Amino acid sequence: MKTIVVRNPPRAETEAVDRLARLGVATVHEAQGRTGLLKPYMRPIYTGAQVAGSAVTVLAQPGDNWMLHVAVEQCQPGDILVVGLTTDNTDGFFGDLLATSLKARGVRGLVIDAGVRDVKSLTEMGFPVWSRAINAKGTVKATLGSVNIPIVCAGALVRPGDAVVADDDGVVVVSRRDARAVAQAGEAREANEAEKREILASGKLGLDLYKMREPLAAAGLVYVDYSPEHE
Amino acid sequence: MKTIVVRNPPRAETEAVDRLARLGVATVHEAQGRTGLLKPYMRPIYTGAQVAGSAVTVLAQPGDNWMLHVAVEQCQPGDILVVGLTTDNTDGFFGDLLATSLKARGVRGLVIDAGVRDVKSLTEMGFPVWSRAINAKGTVKATLGSVNIPIVCAGALVRPGDAVVADDDGVVVVSRRDARAVAQAGEAREANEAEKREILASGKLGLDLYKMREPLAAAGLVYVDYSPEHE
Amino acid sequence: MKTIVVRNPPRAETEAVDRLARLGVATVHEAQGRTGLLKPYMRPIYTGAQVAGSAVTVLAQPGDNWMLHVAVEQCQPGDILVVGLTTDNTDGFFGDLLATSLKARGVRGLVIDAGVRDVKSLTEMGFPVWSRAINAKGTVKATLGSVNIPIVCAGALVRPGDAVVADDDGVVVVSRRDARAVAQAGEAREANEAEKREILASGKLGLDLYKMREPLAAAGLVYVDYSPEHE
Amino acid sequence: MKTIVVRNPPRAETEAVDRLARLGVATVHEAQGRTGLLKPYMRPIYTGAQVAGSAVTVLAQPGDNWMLHVAVEQCQPGDILVVGLTTDNTDGFFGDLLATSLKARGVRGLVIDAGVRDVKSLTEMGFPVWSRAINAKGTVKATLGSVNIPIVCAGALVRPGDAVVADDDGVVVVSRRDARAVAQAGEAREANEAEKREILASGKLGLDLYKMREPLAAAGLVYVDYSPEHE
Amino acid sequence: MKTIVVRNPPRAETEAVDRLARLGVATVHEAQGRTGLLKPYMRPIYTGAQVAGSAVTVLAQPGDNWMLHVAVEQCQPGDILVVGLTTDNTDGFFGDLLATSLKARGVRGLVIDAGVRDVKSLTEMGFPVWSRAINAKGTVKATLGSVNIPIVCAGALVRPGDAVVADDDGVVVVSRRDARAVAQAGEAREANEAEKREILASGKLGLDLYKMREPLAAAGLVYVDYSPEHE
Amino acid sequence: MKTIVVRNPPRAETEAVDRLARLGVATVHEAQGRTGLLKPYMRPIYTGAQVAGSAVTVLAQPGDNWMLHVAVEQCQPGDILVVGLTTDNTDGFFGDLLATSLKARGVRGLVIDAGVRDVKSLTEMGFPVWSRAINAKGTVKATLGSVNIPIVCAGALVRPGDAVVADDDGVVVVSRRDARAVAQAGEAREANEAEKREILASGKLGLDLYKMREPLAAAGLVYVDYSPEHE
Repeated sequence: MKTIVVRNPPRAETEAVDRLARLGVATVHEAQGRTGLLKPYMRPIYTGAQVAGSAVTVLAQPGDNWMLHVAVEQCQPGDILVVGLTTDNTDGFFGDLLATSLKARGVRGLVIDAGVRDVKSLTEMGFPVWSRAINAKGTVKATLGSVNIPIVCAGALVRPGDAVVADDDGVVVVSRRDARAVAQAGEAREANEAEKREILASGKLGLDLYKMREPLAAAGLVYVDYSPEHE
Repeated sequence: MKTIVVRNPPRAETEAVDRLARLGVATVHEAQGRTGLLKPYMRPIYTGAQVAGSAVTVLAQPGDNWMLHVAVEQCQPGDILVVGLTTDNTDGFFGDLLATSLKARGVRGLVIDAGVRDVKSLTEMGFPVWSRAINAKGTVKATLGSVNIPIVCAGALVRPGDAVVADDDGVVVVSRRDARAVAQAGEAREANEAEKREILASGKLGLDLYKMREPLAAAGLVYVDYSPEHE
Repeated sequence: MKTIVVRNPPRAETEAVDRLARLGVATVHEAQGRTGLLKPYMRPIYTGAQVAGSAVTVLAQPGDNWMLHVAVEQCQPGDILVVGLTTDNTDGFFGDLLATSLKARGVRGLVIDAGVRDVKSLTEMGFPVWSRAINAKGTVKATLGSVNIPIVCAGALVRPGDAVVADDDGVVVVSRRDARAVAQAGEAREANEAEKREILASGKLGLDLYKMREPLAAAGLVYVDYSPEHE
Repeated sequence: MKTIVVRNPPRAETEAVDRLARLGVATVHEAQGRTGLLKPYMRPIYTGAQVAGSAVTVLAQPGDNWMLHVAVEQCQPGDILVVGLTTDNTDGFFGDLLATSLKARGVRGLVIDAGVRDVKSLTEMGFPVWSRAINAKGTVKATLGSVNIPIVCAGALVRPGDAVVADDDGVVVVSRRDARAVAQAGEAREANEAEKREILASGKLGLDLYKMREPLAAAGLVYVDYSPEHE
Repeated sequence: MKTIVVRNPPRAETEAVDRLARLGVATVHEAQGRTGLLKPYMRPIYTGAQVAGSAVTVLAQPGDNWMLHVAVEQCQPGDILVVGLTTDNTDGFFGDLLATSLKARGVRGLVIDAGVRDVKSLTEMGFPVWSRAINAKGTVKATLGSVNIPIVCAGALVRPGDAVVADDDGVVVVSRRDARAVAQAGEAREANEAEKREILASGKLGLDLYKMREPLAAAGLVYVDYSPEHE
Repeated sequence: MKTIVVRNPPRAETEAVDRLARLGVATVHEAQGRTGLLKPYMRPIYTGAQVAGSAVTVLAQPGDNWMLHVAVEQCQPGDILVVGLTTDNTDGFFGDLLATSLKARGVRGLVIDAGVRDVKSLTEMGFPVWSRAINAKGTVKATLGSVNIPIVCAGALVRPGDAVVADDDGVVVVSRRDARAVAQAGEAREANEAEKREILASGKLGLDLYKMREPLAAAGLVYVDYSPEHE
C-alpha cells in the first residue's frame, strides 16, 4: 500500500461547494446523473446537519487511527475529512479530541466508513459526522496509511479536493471539476421542483403532470375493478 | 408477474381503524394473537407518529418507483400506502413530491420495504414513513408492477383494504374483516394492563400477580444462595 | 443448561459505580485497558441517558421472557438488568409493564441482547434501555433459563454484580472487583483529556502534542507535494 | 395465533409436480411470470439435489420445533415440508431423526426458514434440505404453532398443497392450481432456450438474436472509441 | 488489555477429548445441556472434518495476527488453536505457512472469529479450519494481545485447556473439567438415538414414540379437516 | 449517469496476466502492497477455479441486466467480465445463456457484485463465476448503464483493461500498467515462501525465523506460568 501524504491538492471552489450544501444530497445526486452516492449505511450521528466541503481523504488500517492525526495538519477551513478503510471495521476511530482539532482548523465535518465515539460531546459541539457505526472501541496508532490519495469510501470513489455533500439523506461526492456545473444543474432542478410541488399539492396527479398514462398503457398496464377473486 | 391495478377494493371500517391507531402496534399485535407483524427492520423516519389506515398495496420492481405514481390515484382519505418489492432493495423510492401528492389525497402515511429520501422535508411536513432504509438513490420509471394485489411486505402478507397500524414499535397488519374485533380485544387488553401497571408500580411482583411461582417450580427452577463457586 | 437463580451475589460498590456513570463508556473502556465493551449493535432506545449499575444477569431462551419476570425479584436499587440469550433473537422481551416493576425496585436500566417494545412509553417513563432491536413481537413464558450466572451478552462476558456503564456510545462492563480502580484511572484520564482539549482547541496539532512526527518518519511516512499524477 | 392442524388439504397434481422438478427453479420462476421465489438466503445443505413436491406447511415459534413433530403425521409421499417462523431465528430445528421419519413417509425434502443440524448425516441419507442456516443449537417443545395454514416462508406466501421446487438456485413456490400450466409454460421456454443456446454457442450475439440494437439506440446508448480520458 | 502469554495451562484429558470428537458437535451440545455453542456464522472451509482438541486461546487485535505467531510456540500435539478478536473483523489472519507450523506441532485445527486465506492449500494439507470468513486480506504484526487467557469467541466463553469440538454442524466448547462426563452423557444419548432411529425408520411416529399427543392436546392443539376456507 | 460503451480499451499484457493467474489472489494481493482486494462476500459458485484476465467493466442498474448483453460484444479472448451496480442488489443477472455467449468469445470468467443463477449448468460448463449471491430472480432489460468505464465493484476500483485475478480466496484487481511488475514481485515472494514453508515444516518456529522475540519483548509482552488465578 502506498503510504504517502499528498500536500495541498487543489480544492473544489468554495462558492460552488456552498451552493451544493444548500441543495442537499438528493438534489445533488440527481443533478449529476445519479452518481457519487455513498452506501446508505452511512448515517449522521445527529439529525439536521447539512454541509458540504472539499475532501481531505484518508486511507486507514482497521483499528488504527494514526493517519487521522496525520490528516488534521493537511486540513484547511472549508474541508471535510473523508476516511476509508482497507477492510470493513467499526472501531471508534474518532472522538471529541480529534473533533476539537478539526474544528480549530475550520473543518466542516467528518465522513468515515468506520465507527466514532463521544457522540454526545460531538453533538453538543455541533460537529457533524456521518459514519458506519457508533462505537466506543479504541484504536491503536501503529501502522501507516495515506492522506490525500483516491480512496473508496462506502462504495464511492473519492479523490482529494472533491466536493462532498452530506445531510440526513446520506452523503454524495462530486468531482472537483464538476462542482460548479452540478450546482447549476441542481438549482435548475430545484426551481422546477418547487413548481411541481405546488401543482401536486393542489391535487393534480403525477400521472397527468408527468404524462405517464400513455407509456403505462403502452407497457401493458391494465385496470380492473375489484371483485372478490382479487383477494 | 401480474401487472394490474385493482380499483376500489373494500376498505376496513374507518371507526375500527381509528381505534386501532389509538391502541398502537404492540397492543394490536397481542390482541390478534401475535400475528401480522412486519419485520423489525422497518423503522420510522422520525419518532412519535402513531397512525392507522387502510392499505393500498403496491408491488414494485427494484430501483423502479413507477407503480407508486400509479398507486397515488387509487388512494382515498384514511389510506396508508404499503409497498413491497419483488426483491431486496434499498433505493430511495419516495420523497417529498410523492408525499405532497399523498397528503393532498388524505393519505395517512407510507410503509415501504425499501428506501426513502428527503427525510428532513418529510419530517417537516409531518408525513410519517416506515421504511427499510434512508437512501438518496434515485429510481427509474421503466417496468410495471401491480397495485392492490396481495403482497408480502417485510415478511407479512398484506391485502388491499387491510388495516395497517404503525408507531415507534413498528408496523402491524390486521385483516380488514377482523379490524373491529381486534380493536375491541385490544381495548379490553389495554384496560386490563392499566390495572396491572398500577399494581406493579406499587411494588407487587409479576411473579405473584401472574401466579408464576408454582409453574416455575414445576418446571424445575431452583433457587440457591450465592457462593464464590458461582462466579 | 443450568436453570438456577442465584440469590444475593455481591454487588460492585455503589460509590465506584456512580463515579463510573459520570465518566461514561468511552472513558471507562479506555481506563480499563480497552476491554469489556459490548458489540456496537447495542443501541439506546433514546439518546441522552448515561447510567451505571450492578449487573443482575439473565440467560434466556429465544422468544421466551419468563426469566425476566423471575429476575425482577432479585433486583435491588442501583442494579441494571443484563439479559443474554442462548441464540440470536430480536423478539420484544420487555415493555412498559416490566419497566414499571423494575422502576418500582430502583433499577437503573436494562441492557438486553434482544428486542424491546413500548419504546414510546419507556421514553416517557425515563427508563433507559440498550437493546439489539425494537420489536413489538411478543414472547412466551414456557422454558427456564437462569438468573445471576455468568453470561455472554453482545460478545462480552458479564458476571452478576459487575459494574455496567451505558450511554450514547454503547455499553461497557467492569469487573466488580476492579470498579474502584477503574473509576480512579478514568478520572485521571479525564483530567488529562481536559487539558489536551484546551491545547488542541488553541490550534496546536496532535502530531506535536503527542510527539508523533518522529515515529511516523521512522515508520516510513513520506510527504509529497500534489502533482496531477496523484489524481 | 391460530394453533390448528388442517388435515388433508388438496395437493398439486403429482404429474405436474414432477415436470416442475425436472425444469428447475430458474425456469419455473420465469415460466410463472417471475413470482413465488423465496429469498436467496435459502441455501441447500449439499449441492446437486433438484426436487419438487406438494407443500405441507408449518408455522413454528423461535427455538421450538414441536410443530415439526406434529407435521410429520400430515405428510404423504411426494410432499415437501415447508417451515416458516413467527420471527427470525436460526436454531437447529431439524436433524437426522426427523429426517428419518420424513423419509419413512416418502417426503422429498425440507424447506425451512431457520437452521438445521446433522448435515453430514442428512447428506449421507440423501435427504435434501434448503435452510437459512446450519446450526447445532437444539430447540424446545413447549409452544404450539400450526400445520397446513398459509404461511410466509423466506418472503414468499406458501399455501398447503402448493407445488414447491428447489435446486442449487434456490426455492420457488407455484400455486397448486397453476402447477400444470406453469409446467407447460416452462417446457415451452426450455425448448426455446435450447435453440438459443446453440445459436449463442456458435458466436452470434444476443444483441442481434434478441434484436436489442435498435431499442438500445432509442434509449440513448452511445458508443465511443477508447481514449486516455476514459481512464 | 492484558498482554500476557500464559504457559502450560492444564489440558482436557486426551481420551475424553477423542471421545468427544467421535460424538460430534450436535450430540456434545445436547449432552452438556445445550451450552457452549459458537454462533452459526462459524463455518468449516471444507466439509467432512470432525475433530476435537484442547484449546490454546488467542485474543488478537483487528487486522493484526502477531499473537498467532506467538501462540504457535504454546501449542502441543492434540491442541486446537482458538482465536477471538477485540472487535468484529474478517481479515485473513491465517494461511498455509501458519498451518504448516501448527501441523508440525501436532495441532488438530483452527477455530477463528475472523478470516483465513490459502483455503485451497489448507484443504490439500487436510488442515481443518472453522472461520467467520474466507479473505485474502493480509494483516500486520504491530500490536500485542494475549495467549491462553479466557476469551469470548463467536459468542462463547473459551478458557485455555477447554475441549473444543468442531464438525460440519459448527463448533462447541466443553469445560476442561466436564469433558469426561460430557463424553459419557453423549455416548449414552447416542446409544439411545440409534434405537430411536430404527423405530422411526420403521414408520412409527415421533408423536407416539415421544408420547406427545397428550401434552399437545393439553396445550390446546386442535385438528380440523380441510375446507376451502382454510386457503 | 454516463451511459456509454467504450470500445477497445487497452488490455493488460496476456503474459503478465497468465503469470498472475498462476500466483493466485493472496500472493498477488501481498505482492502489490495489500491493495485491490474485493470485499470477502464475493465467493466462487464452485471451488477450485483459479483464473486471471483483463477486465471488461459494466455498470448496471438494480434488477436490470441489459448492459451485460451489450458488454458481450466488447469482450475478447482472455477477458474477464466485471460487473458493478449502482446500488446493492442480489438479483440473478447472469445464467447459462450469457455464459454460453461469453465462452464462445473466449472470456475466462465473471466477477459480479450481484446474483447469478443456473449455477449447476455453469459448474458443468466449467465457467467460473465470483458473485455476491446465487439467486434465480430474473432481471429486466429497460435502463441503460455503461461498459468499460471505471467502476467500484465490491469496494474496489476497477478500470477497463485492469488485470483481475480470482480463486477460492476471492478476487483482486491489478492496475493494467502494474501487471508485469506485480507478477514479478509475486514470483519472488512465492520462491521465498517455499523456502519458509520447508523450514516451518521442520518445526522451527516463526518466532525465530522472523526474529520476532525481540520486538515482542520491546512491545512489552510478558510470559507467565499458568496458575489457577488465570482461569
